Amino acid sequence: MYLEMIEQTNDIKKIEPEHLKDLAQEIREFLIEKISVTGGHLGSNLGTVELTMALHLALNLPEDKIIWDVGHQAYTHKLLTGRRDGFETLRQFHGMSGFPKRKESECDVFDTGHSSTSISAGLGLVKARDIKGETNTIVSVIGDGSLTGGMSYEAMNNASKQQTNFIIVLNDNNMSISENVGGVSKYLNNIRTATGYLDLKKGIYNALQGTKRGNNTIKTIRRAKSSFKHLVIPGMFFEDMGITYLGPVNGHDVNELINVINDAKRVEGAVLIHVMTQKGKGYAPAERHPARFHGTGPFEIETGLPKVARSAASYTDIFSTVMCKLGQRDENVVAVTAAMPDGTGLKRFRNMYPERFFDVGIAEEHAVTFAAGLAAGGMKPVVAVYSSFLQRAYDQILHDVCLQNLPVVFAIDRAGLVGSDGETHQGIFDFTYLSGIPNMHICAPKNKWELADMLRFAVDYSGPFAVRYPRGTAYDGLKEYRTPIELGKAEWIYKESGIVLLAVGSMVKTAEAVRNRLKEKGYSVSLVNARFVKPIDGETVKEACESHELVVTMEENVAAGGYGEKVLDYMNRNGYRNSVLNICIPDAYIEHGDVEVLKKETGIDADSIVKSICALSESKQDERKT
Amino acid sequence: MYLEMIEQTNDIKKIEPEHLKDLAQEIREFLIEKISVTGGHLGSNLGTVELTMALHLALNLPEDKIIWDVGHQAYTHKLLTGRRDGFETLRQFHGMSGFPKRKESECDVFDTGHSSTSISAGLGLVKARDIKGETNTIVSVIGDGSLTGGMSYEAMNNASKQQTNFIIVLNDNNMSISENVGGVSKYLNNIRTATGYLDLKKGIYNALQGTKRGNNTIKTIRRAKSSFKHLVIPGMFFEDMGITYLGPVNGHDVNELINVINDAKRVEGAVLIHVMTQKGKGYAPAERHPARFHGTGPFEIETGLPKVARSAASYTDIFSTVMCKLGQRDENVVAVTAAMPDGTGLKRFRNMYPERFFDVGIAEEHAVTFAAGLAAGGMKPVVAVYSSFLQRAYDQILHDVCLQNLPVVFAIDRAGLVGSDGETHQGIFDFTYLSGIPNMHICAPKNKWELADMLRFAVDYSGPFAVRYPRGTAYDGLKEYRTPIELGKAEWIYKESGIVLLAVGSMVKTAEAVRNRLKEKGYSVSLVNARFVKPIDGETVKEACESHELVVTMEENVAAGGYGEKVLDYMNRNGYRNSVLNICIPDAYIEHGDVEVLKKETGIDADSIVKSICALSESKQDERKT
Repeated sequence: MYLEMIEQTNDIKKIEPEHLKDLAQEIREFLIEKISVTGGHLGSNLGTVELTMALHLALNLPEDKIIWDVGHQAYTHKLLTGRRDGFETLRQFHGMSGFPKRKESECDVFDTGHSSTSISAGLGLVKARDIKGETNTIVSVIGDGSLTGGMSYEAMNNASKQQTNFIIVLNDNNMSISENVGGVSKYLNNIRTATGYLDLKKGIYNALQGTKRGNNTIKTIRRAKSSFKHLVIPGMFFEDMGITYLGPVNGHDVNELINVINDAKRVEGAVLIHVMTQKGKGYAPAERHPARFHGTGPFEIETGLPKVARSAASYTDIFSTVMCKLGQRDENVVAVTAAMPDGTGLKRFRNMYPERFFDVGIAEEHAVTFAAGLAAGGMKPVVAVYSSFLQRAYDQILHDVCLQNLPVVFAIDRAGLVGSDGETHQGIFDFTYLSGIPNMHICAPKNKWELADMLRFAVDYSGPFAVRYPRGTAYDGLKEYRTPIELGKAEWIYKESGIVLLAVGSMVKTAEAVRNRLKEKGYSVSLVNARFVKPIDGETVKEACESHELVVTMEENVAAGGYGEKVLDYMNRNGYRNSVLNICIPDAYIEHGDVEVLKKETGIDADSIVKSICALSESKQDERKT
Repeated sequence: MYLEMIEQTNDIKKIEPEHLKDLAQEIREFLIEKISVTGGHLGSNLGTVELTMALHLALNLPEDKIIWDVGHQAYTHKLLTGRRDGFETLRQFHGMSGFPKRKESECDVFDTGHSSTSISAGLGLVKARDIKGETNTIVSVIGDGSLTGGMSYEAMNNASKQQTNFIIVLNDNNMSISENVGGVSKYLNNIRTATGYLDLKKGIYNALQGTKRGNNTIKTIRRAKSSFKHLVIPGMFFEDMGITYLGPVNGHDVNELINVINDAKRVEGAVLIHVMTQKGKGYAPAERHPARFHGTGPFEIETGLPKVARSAASYTDIFSTVMCKLGQRDENVVAVTAAMPDGTGLKRFRNMYPERFFDVGIAEEHAVTFAAGLAAGGMKPVVAVYSSFLQRAYDQILHDVCLQNLPVVFAIDRAGLVGSDGETHQGIFDFTYLSGIPNMHICAPKNKWELADMLRFAVDYSGPFAVRYPRGTAYDGLKEYRTPIELGKAEWIYKESGIVLLAVGSMVKTAEAVRNRLKEKGYSVSLVNARFVKPIDGETVKEACESHELVVTMEENVAAGGYGEKVLDYMNRNGYRNSVLNICIPDAYIEHGDVEVLKKETGIDADSIVKSICALSESKQDERKT
């Protein structure tokens, strides 16, 4: 009933302080109910209910601004800014995004999706404010997981230098998507787990009041490792960077949060509020299984179990199995992930070969150069990563791996359209950014068996290799086509004449459907599984050109630097003048929605492709007639 | 005479300890003499003479390994590993590289060039060592400037987690290329500048021996800001990350350095040695002007003045001038650099508009997202950056700038072949990685006036814009061709028939020469200044195709995703079947050397292009005859 009072921004301020707990409870119930139907990010949003309420109460939106790092924790923010109805269409095509979007609300001041950008973006807004002579409050909310990303340090370093008012809220739930890792995490944990923190600190000072005991205590402090020293001087890590530290505070107590936010507003310069929250707070299944409820599909509220039974094996599952086998076969095979042991399927490898598994935190840049170092040391590293996150490590691939021709394998998951996460997560640029890099090899499997074959081939190869595959169920058709992988060689599936479909990876399945429909219409259609995008198989392209009129390339990537352009380039250099139709993702950011809907929208589904081919064929026939 | 005793790795160990100072002196004289002739990185190398000597004395190369961050400070390492003769051909084509190269020596264990990679690479070698069951020592040497790059934190975070022996040497000269910036720099400076550091620390503890005074001191320490607290507990910043801190030590005292390296070898886990050095040490002009002697051309040893008088204005100079004018015209214009106020030419803007100038340190990722934040706050940011360093911020351009269509201008200097810095610094990928990004606009000027016009146009435009231009003297030909810049419109320079040259940016000058030679041979040749690579000017391509037989595209970029492929794509979609010759950089890393030599080697100089065109024209004529 309190939630219903909130129709627009700042309506929360009308609610009596004594009812805020009830509102928090209602928000939690609302989120659980809605996400159980639509799916979405649950754990992170249940963890930030009170923090978001406190920010909305202590700040004056939209003059004051909040930047949400990653942005998957902004559901309460969406609720408090008049977007309750949006949850009916959450993450659906043309529905509400699961991330902050400037086009949705003036209270969403910066779009996010990838990790560790919020302090940089917030500081940009801060300096724009200063130059304009304004005095509003700007707050970046960043999780402790995002703090493993190096960009956040670059930004804190600059924030310190700028010496102007800027609030950073560290939302510390001791988790990234999975368990958090590394020195900084340990450091934060030391602050968190100091039971009766304030009392203990007081106790130490009392102890120091006496002469000898005081001296001894000081000596003890000197000798002690950092966890203890920080009982005396907490947050020094941030103070060292020139940022005032406040906290730690209980992230589920709205009043305490409001007080510390108001304190922070009075601090000169950059200030960091250390807020301790619990991922999944208030919903037992999410508290127990934070990784599973980070991003979830529809589930039964009662039990927390998925509504849809687990379907056939995904490409991630195949990768997971193959990696364990490769690890067994060759003890130099090592695996690297940037905070995604679950998402990438490396968890099983980790359990079998813990000494050869490395979770480096949300730190793709480091992950790739670390892998380059492992390779230079004689290992066979496999970096498992989502396509859109590997964008972070473009220079490291180019400068640290490929320049030295080091045998690092990139297992690129979520390549192509990914669906409900939308614009920031679509994996539609990897052919572009990878194929311009010298020494790189790029392949994409048509089905689950080919993924296994390609991974084996890649690990055995002596140079950089990228194997890219999409989200979701692995295709199990075309089982009978399993010629051995050869470097830069394509595979003929059907050899006819007239039209030849040159399809890459996930598009081979689509090409099957396209071919069947074209056959029904009376066309003669060949199909090639391209396999390699770099190097492309010139011989096969040549053969295709010589025995067909129309060449159709099909890929789940934008045009620039993609497979289609490589085919055109080859044809031009070798004097082929066939008509070519390049099917690819248009030059635009593709929003969230069901993958099948998005394929239709972007014209890469079988229906659209059949239409495009027929239109082109007919226009060619018309040309000939006139 | 001691330097002559060093013919190969470990020969330094034959030199008596009392003669090490003489050796250091000889190395300095050698470096100054050689670099005064060839040019190269002087300041950083003079700063690391003793550090390198100490590492070579305390370690056992090549079993033990040194990774040099950036790598421009490895000249002494090259000297001590038997490459004295290489300095005759330093940075020349097929000569010795100015950076570590695995192909040069087994003592160069990891190629570097860009900043902040050494801890990641070193940690990879460390874990490979552990898996193989070896026990050698691995040392990453990183400057305090490189420490502003976020990757180094990502790596330290992981180093802490791995809990294995690994030595990080922080070579702290209180400089990046220019003055160092930000919170961490200030922190390090606080340690550095604590005069009589050890004595003072002792004094504090003595003070604490008394009862009341002790208590008061503790209170004072608590109240004090970080600089003072760190007199008591130095290096806590690193200790907080789980890394043992040793230092600070004098980086010009070989014995002290050997002792601390030996101490570090005994520490369990990751350890950081804080070494204080002076950039340019031992050569007065370099001590006085560290930025100028960071990378220098040939100079007079006596005076430190350049041997070659400053030639005509460079593109950087033009950019510098235009930026000041743009800053005057519009007070929302702000400038961002990642530690390159000198190199990018932003120094003048900084001096005129300090409030609107931001040097964020070596931190390209942050620079770009910070600029996105500034743009979201209503500013018109111009990010001035070298092409190869912008690779670091690929995801930030895609995810933070272009997704929100924010008006950030990228002034991309050193685009194309850069010469003596070689493989890691060639700016030959930017068309590829930028042109796949939706909403991005990319242009390149033919001459100095067009750079000014394009910058003005870009700053006035309401979305992301990249203007890319090469290193070196700005072309001042074709002055009479100055039609106003229009979005996505090319410019006809000469309209004839037969052959049409579609040239991008720096290649317009080359195309002029190509055209003149082809004319002498009797060909009829048109020339188009492409201006835009994204979007390309379809109308002009169409016109060119309709009135010419042979289309030649010319760009200083690799083929993938470049201008040539875009032209092919347009022609294919619009049914043009002309012969096309794409002149571009081959799919390979291009080594160091004189730019003109490299152009010849890569086939993009006028001679090579003329030959290619004539060969193609003749083969076409032969075709027709048969």
